[in-house]
Amino acid sequence: MFESAELGHCVDKTQYDADVPALRAALLDAQFDLREASQFAVVILVNGVDAAGKGETVNLLNTWMDPRHIVTSAFDATRHEARERPRMWRFWRMLPPKGSVGILFGNWYEGPIEGRSVKRIKRNRLDQRLDEINRFEAMLADEGVLLIKFWFHLSRDRQKTRLKTLASDPLTRWRVTDTDWQHFKHYRRRHRVAEHVLRHTSTAEAPWIIVDGSDAHYRALLVGRTVLGAMRKRLDVEHPWRPRLSAAPIPVMLDARSVLDTLQLDQPLGKKDYRRALEQLQGRLARLTRRKRFGKRSLVMVFEGMDAAGKGGAIRRLTAALDARQYQVIPVGAPSDEEQAQPYLWRFWRHAPRRGKVVIFDRSWYGRVLVERVEGFCSESDWMRAYGEINDFEDALADAGAVVVKFWLSISLDEQLARFEARAAEPHKRFKITDEDWRNRERWPSYARAVSDMIDRTSTERSPWTLIEADNKRYARIKVLRTVCERLEAALG
Amino acid sequence: MFESAELGHCVDKTQYDADVPALRAALLDAQFDLREASQFAVVILVNGVDAAGKGETVNLLNTWMDPRHIVTSAFDATRHEARERPRMWRFWRMLPPKGSVGILFGNWYEGPIEGRSVKRIKRNRLDQRLDEINRFEAMLADEGVLLIKFWFHLSRDRQKTRLKTLASDPLTRWRVTDTDWQHFKHYRRRHRVAEHVLRHTSTAEAPWIIVDGSDAHYRALLVGRTVLGAMRKRLDVEHPWRPRLSAAPIPVMLDARSVLDTLQLDQPLGKKDYRRALEQLQGRLARLTRRKRFGKRSLVMVFEGMDAAGKGGAIRRLTAALDARQYQVIPVGAPSDEEQAQPYLWRFWRHAPRRGKVVIFDRSWYGRVLVERVEGFCSESDWMRAYGEINDFEDALADAGAVVVKFWLSISLDEQLARFEARAAEPHKRFKITDEDWRNRERWPSYARAVSDMIDRTSTERSPWTLIEADNKRYARIKVLRTVCERLEAALG
Repeated sequence: MFESAELGHCVDKTQYDADVPALRAALLDAQFDLREASQFAVVILVNGVDAAGKGETVNLLNTWMDPRHIVTSAFDATRHEARERPRMWRFWRMLPPKGSVGILFGNWYEGPIEGRSVKRIKRNRLDQRLDEINRFEAMLADEGVLLIKFWFHLSRDRQKTRLKTLASDPLTRWRVTDTDWQHFKHYRRRHRVAEHVLRHTSTAEAPWIIVDGSDAHYRALLVGRTVLGAMRKRLDVEHPWRPRLSAAPIPVMLDARSVLDTLQLDQPLGKKDYRRALEQLQGRLARLTRRKRFGKRSLVMVFEGMDAAGKGGAIRRLTAALDARQYQVIPVGAPSDEEQAQPYLWRFWRHAPRRGKVVIFDRSWYGRVLVERVEGFCSESDWMRAYGEINDFEDALADAGAVVVKFWLSISLDEQLARFEARAAEPHKRFKITDEDWRNRERWPSYARAVSDMIDRTSTERSPWTLIEADNKRYARIKVLRTVCERLEAALG
Repeated sequence: MFESAELGHCVDKTQYDADVPALRAALLDAQFDLREASQFAVVILVNGVDAAGKGETVNLLNTWMDPRHIVTSAFDATRHEARERPRMWRFWRMLPPKGSVGILFGNWYEGPIEGRSVKRIKRNRLDQRLDEINRFEAMLADEGVLLIKFWFHLSRDRQKTRLKTLASDPLTRWRVTDTDWQHFKHYRRRHRVAEHVLRHTSTAEAPWIIVDGSDAHYRALLVGRTVLGAMRKRLDVEHPWRPRLSAAPIPVMLDARSVLDTLQLDQPLGKKDYRRALEQLQGRLARLTRRKRFGKRSLVMVFEGMDAAGKGGAIRRLTAALDARQYQVIPVGAPSDEEQAQPYLWRFWRHAPRRGKVVIFDRSWYGRVLVERVEGFCSESDWMRAYGEINDFEDALADAGAVVVKFWLSISLDEQLARFEARAAEPHKRFKITDEDWRNRERWPSYARAVSDMIDRTSTERSPWTLIEADNKRYARIKVLRTVCERLEAALG
């Protein structure tokens, strides 16, 4: 893995001074074109051995390019352990939007490498993490992100020399930390772990580029040229670059039977019984979310359903039981410009809850496999891969302690019509009904099919779907509340 | 996962009889077009619950289509444990060539599912296996294989009823085996394991299709239509289908320094010393390969090097020490028609050694990242992904007990010229030198670069490359022999 990086590559100063101006100009051009096109983002990962010139090289990149459109962020392994939020949350936050460059120090690799080097995690735990990383990076690649991964290498002897040199100079002494010496002590072990990690995460879409860190000119030119080459390669393709063409078989439906048809949509529940049950369940939910144990968990609720299925009403009955400082309702509509410039899960990751918090999504990431699929807003391969990506996302939430409760509120076509007409008649509710709602009614069978596939492919043991018979609003609200209470009780023990 | 498959879908006989003729005709057409184009192979995986109609459905498919171009093969979980050869070997053997359909019962999923259901393997071992499977299937997809995965489902009650019905009829009693009842006993556990497996292997390229197995007409039509749809989708694309467009950064080279330059190619070794060392080492190798412990291992040797680097001579010095019944030398040239109709690793998998055997590859799977890369015989994304695929392949060999020893025989340009001229002068060696050899000399720098990348990306702790200074043939042969002996000694303890 590191054979070529130990040859002592170097570039002399004359050569370097001669090469840099052209490289800078070309990098600035590429950055300009990237920005103009705004078709993809560039993510540069910087990892490797301490004192191998990672920081200096990145500083140079920032000098050479327009730093206004570069976001540089650093992550260490330690904070990672806090796990206030799902593990990947802090990386999602720092992803650059389309048209920009993001440089991520440490990033998602430092945690696993460090953890395994000091034997905090076992080998097969490491392998699981690498699998997660591969899936995450495949998702980024499918979303069009250009991922460039640099590993800065130094042999043990060279690292020692360099650390000593840095430590002996008063001007650079601050750069050598205890962690650096700690890492050095474990050099051989870290080296072996790094080799394993690099090998298992060098994919065709995002191979590792090993940088010989021993010569400052060499490493700067190498990194600069690699970034330039990768950007130009993507910018210069004739046709718009498409990450993957799917030719996967699409499930066939022979009859119109779907899980939704098994529901008896109009369930009886009188006003009086409703009021009593509501009061009782809201009290139960209030107590549950105030339990001490809930401080180590969180609650994520997803509401999906046809228009006018009563999502808003059900959500209000839930929030009535919660402390306003504790919950957040996220209404999901068309994505903003900022959101559109990111992988599609980005807008949901930003709302991943802290411990002890409740997040309620009024529509959600399932839009990808519902409206976007039915209306053709995304390609078939996009929504086909979304099932797996969504499962991974909900797994990440659950791993961080979240209880994920997902509701599909199901109403009949007739009931929907009645509600539309009622809304149209009431001036203060008229805004709720648009032409689009009427159009969506015509696509009912396509939606039913999409819902059926969604439930089959994303109802998992950890994060199951609950189907709600919603023709009777009262019944629906009670069933929602009861389900949430039951899931929380099971989780809190 | 199985929600829709428990709805009791059915198709009545009238409908079925009306639909089948058109479906058959369309399937035959698709099969014909598949064969005519011969651009890709269709692999159908059949898994699921016992007595859910897997066999009947596949028999029907064979009746509906032209069975001459369908290869049906069945794999069970038990034989798998024998591990005479690497685990995936028996599946590679049964892969259909381009233009054909292969139906694989059981296949690579039955082992992990069964193993985990009876708790023979642990959860994270299962996850590792699923990761391997995902990488394997991604490779198949990248090689253009159309993969259709069917899971036949029955609820526990239905399975029980069906097993009882089959067992009570003298004509079908033979179909219910002890294993079936055994599986039934573990239904719930198997079900949970299956759900986990299906979820983690439902990828965008190859999602699982769940088949409700309770009605014979329904399942037959569903499978037939799905196969037809998937084939037509791929056959009908306007442009030739390409699995993946890579825009990965390609490593940049700033100087011509490569690991090869660190070698002092002309090493001294006199004739007399050579003879003595040769005799001693051949004896050592002969004893090693006859040790009892070697019966549980195997030896895979790879020889790569520029033309006239002395691969043949080194190999002959090795085989002289081996029992002819024990070893096989595989000379690797341009692939045959049969080999070209398969994923590129297929021709090497077929020679994966049994335990106790020695296989010597004179050139190898590294052709992909050497000659094919340099000459442009494959696309950049093909050779970029090959590094990972090759590492996986060698891991599979090592997992099955193989000691993998890889040699790069390095000669100087001058030495090569001298050898070419000597060959040209000697009538009985003239055949060894062709125009292509002269042409390759001109591409020397491109080859050097490819070799350097190859060593960086595929020299792993388990399967390292050994660089051989080969300007002096005697020295080279001795170093090869010594390396093999040392690696074997380390492995056999």
